[in-house]
Amino acid sequence: MPKRNAFYAQSGGVTAVVNATACAVIETARKHRNRIGKVYAGRNGIIGALTEDLIDTSKESAAAVSALKHTPAGAFGSARYKLASLDKDRAQYERLIEVFRAHDIGYFLYNGGNDSADTCLKVSQLSQHLGYPLVAVHVPKTVDNDLAVTDCCPGFGSVAKYVATSMREAAFDVASMAKTSTRVFVLEVMGRHAGWITAAVGLADDAETPIPLLLLFPEITFDEAKFLAALDEKVKRFGYCCVGVSEGLRNAEGKFLSEAGTTDAFGHAQLGGVGPLIASLVKERLKHKYHWAVADYLQRAARHIASKTDLDQAYAVGKSAVELALAGKNAVMPAIVRLSDKPYRWKIGVAPLDKVANVEKRLPREYITADGFGITAKARAYLSPLLRGEAFPPFRDGLPRYVRLKNVSVPRKLATEFTP
Amino acid sequence: MPKRNAFYAQSGGVTAVVNATACAVIETARKHRNRIGKVYAGRNGIIGALTEDLIDTSKESAAAVSALKHTPAGAFGSARYKLASLDKDRAQYERLIEVFRAHDIGYFLYNGGNDSADTCLKVSQLSQHLGYPLVAVHVPKTVDNDLAVTDCCPGFGSVAKYVATSMREAAFDVASMAKTSTRVFVLEVMGRHAGWITAAVGLADDAETPIPLLLLFPEITFDEAKFLAALDEKVKRFGYCCVGVSEGLRNAEGKFLSEAGTTDAFGHAQLGGVGPLIASLVKERLKHKYHWAVADYLQRAARHIASKTDLDQAYAVGKSAVELALAGKNAVMPAIVRLSDKPYRWKIGVAPLDKVANVEKRLPREYITADGFGITAKARAYLSPLLRGEAFPPFRDGLPRYVRLKNVSVPRKLATEFTP
Repeated sequence: MPKRNAFYAQSGGVTAVVNATACAVIETARKHRNRIGKVYAGRNGIIGALTEDLIDTSKESAAAVSALKHTPAGAFGSARYKLASLDKDRAQYERLIEVFRAHDIGYFLYNGGNDSADTCLKVSQLSQHLGYPLVAVHVPKTVDNDLAVTDCCPGFGSVAKYVATSMREAAFDVASMAKTSTRVFVLEVMGRHAGWITAAVGLADDAETPIPLLLLFPEITFDEAKFLAALDEKVKRFGYCCVGVSEGLRNAEGKFLSEAGTTDAFGHAQLGGVGPLIASLVKERLKHKYHWAVADYLQRAARHIASKTDLDQAYAVGKSAVELALAGKNAVMPAIVRLSDKPYRWKIGVAPLDKVANVEKRLPREYITADGFGITAKARAYLSPLLRGEAFPPFRDGLPRYVRLKNVSVPRKLATEFTP
Repeated sequence: MPKRNAFYAQSGGVTAVVNATACAVIETARKHRNRIGKVYAGRNGIIGALTEDLIDTSKESAAAVSALKHTPAGAFGSARYKLASLDKDRAQYERLIEVFRAHDIGYFLYNGGNDSADTCLKVSQLSQHLGYPLVAVHVPKTVDNDLAVTDCCPGFGSVAKYVATSMREAAFDVASMAKTSTRVFVLEVMGRHAGWITAAVGLADDAETPIPLLLLFPEITFDEAKFLAALDEKVKRFGYCCVGVSEGLRNAEGKFLSEAGTTDAFGHAQLGGVGPLIASLVKERLKHKYHWAVADYLQRAARHIASKTDLDQAYAVGKSAVELALAGKNAVMPAIVRLSDKPYRWKIGVAPLDKVANVEKRLPREYITADGFGITAKARAYLSPLLRGEAFPPFRDGLPRYVRLKNVSVPRKLATEFTP
């Protein structure tokens, strides 16, 4: 087999451990120097491929690449950019092939969520449609944990650990203040359509550390009267109550309770603000003193409290993706397969990409308690292993040390410019 | 000297390490069993003293008391409750003495901030005015870092570590997204009148990890046009910009930019929401895509990322408070004295309480850069040592294990009830 180069890109919202996947891709490729020439990363994701703005990862030292394992976010830049169908957007696909041909890219490794899986699937069909030999492998990554087939998604375990830890800590705070001050604490978390992160907030409350807690899932239509009654009951009984609310909470008309009024590049509404909205509702109707927090990027970038399990899985999918590519497996995605809950055991399997692309895995109803405000034992059994293990980054002068790569550009070979 | 009991109470907003102070008070008192009978804690702070709702800390095991060192918030409950002057509120003070006499309290250890120092000072005068022998010692605690005399305040170093870490992580996230999505990230932090926490956000940016960052201090009047110009310049130059904004940011009329419309028990306006306000300003005026976070209680309860230096100092002031009380030092506060910046060395000194009560230590102007948006080398030299060292709590199943005490009530001795 001829030696060819690999293209790797990060897509969509970043996570605390997506760079661990990048690390695995580069480290594994370096172990197969006889088969893979260089790993070129797209600067700002797929945009880098379209504009021939490639990063030569071979310029990075082994130490710098290894430091990606403890560095959050996307080391090469990510992008919110979705390619339309081959029919609709043929010019973009042809440009991709033009760039890949110029740089002898034989392997396309795309690290993202649902939308990216769809893009990767389309690219995987190019080999056939446009006659350019290319193996496309999708590498799972999303804090939303909403990819199909895979048992969980790298990035989720760490955000789960962050939100559960944060809610537990805040609950201790509120409990201290409740006698004369704050009685209700609201934490808004990410998860536009799927309530996985909201469910993870529920782990803050357990047998050893019970916490009066209500969860507002995007899967459950918000019922104001029912929520206020449940909340008031908890405050009366325990003196305080905590609320974990999804940014994607919807009303009976199916509308998001709070919309920032802007949309992202994919046309998704950009949310934020349902936390303060719920808090002010509590104040108006129940007159309880409240505090609210919106964790936003802090939750998905929180490498300092990453899950070791999540980190290991993020690395494993990166390694597997390179191996699958070398084995010529086109249009697949390494998936995490759960072998058992107790003890938690997992392995890497292979998912056909057409079963993953554009499918959203919502939180099953059986993971939500009958009243709609909590998580079941089944949810706990699923979620709990994903948070396990600590993997603190190195610290200097009291702060985590995160690496910035040199990100040296690959010399351009094409005369043509392209504006995506 | 006769053996007498000690009363300990937590007051005001809690911190990640105030329980380490409680631990020190109890452990140190247990080492002086010949002089101190029991440590009674006020359930919900001073309210517990007024209502004769005392907690017998002798019922807690050594292991449980030790676990307070890694448990955030107030283990006995705190209170936002300020006593007026002796003239105005004589009944409350007489009630305190009545309760203290009934339980043979000889030592009053009050763990709080500015308002609490004032209460403690008043209590210290009771011995003379009401003829009851009592030694009152204030123990410093506030995330706001605004107490006079002491070089810093236990609780601050940990919140500083949290906000600097969080901003650094979020900056990596924004940098990844900036090409096609978020260009401005706003983090709102605590600090109603003093910009110490805002200044700590500035540590996210350093020589090894430069970050385009603007800080909005409560000490600097908000100048919208100047801010927007500075922000736009950073975005144009670096592709993105982060903003750390104090909840107490004020406009030219001296008014808080955002008020929740409610006030706490001390009559302070309860703030929150200046973060989203700044973000929407950026969107309207500059059209940049933005994200914002409000850390709220997460920042002050974040024991998982506490500063070891802060933890050590929180313990040291608790230990010293008991020793000062035993030495009969009335109306004082153990203070942290900085001996040198490099290497950072400190010791515990003694502050007269009348120099501390109701005095607010603002961020010096020389700690803020000339343009008003950053911190100086002097600020870094002061702040940096306070964040140093990690002191992770124990984890189980991926989450920190925090202790809840039994909090057994001391049998009441008084027939009279009292409603504060």
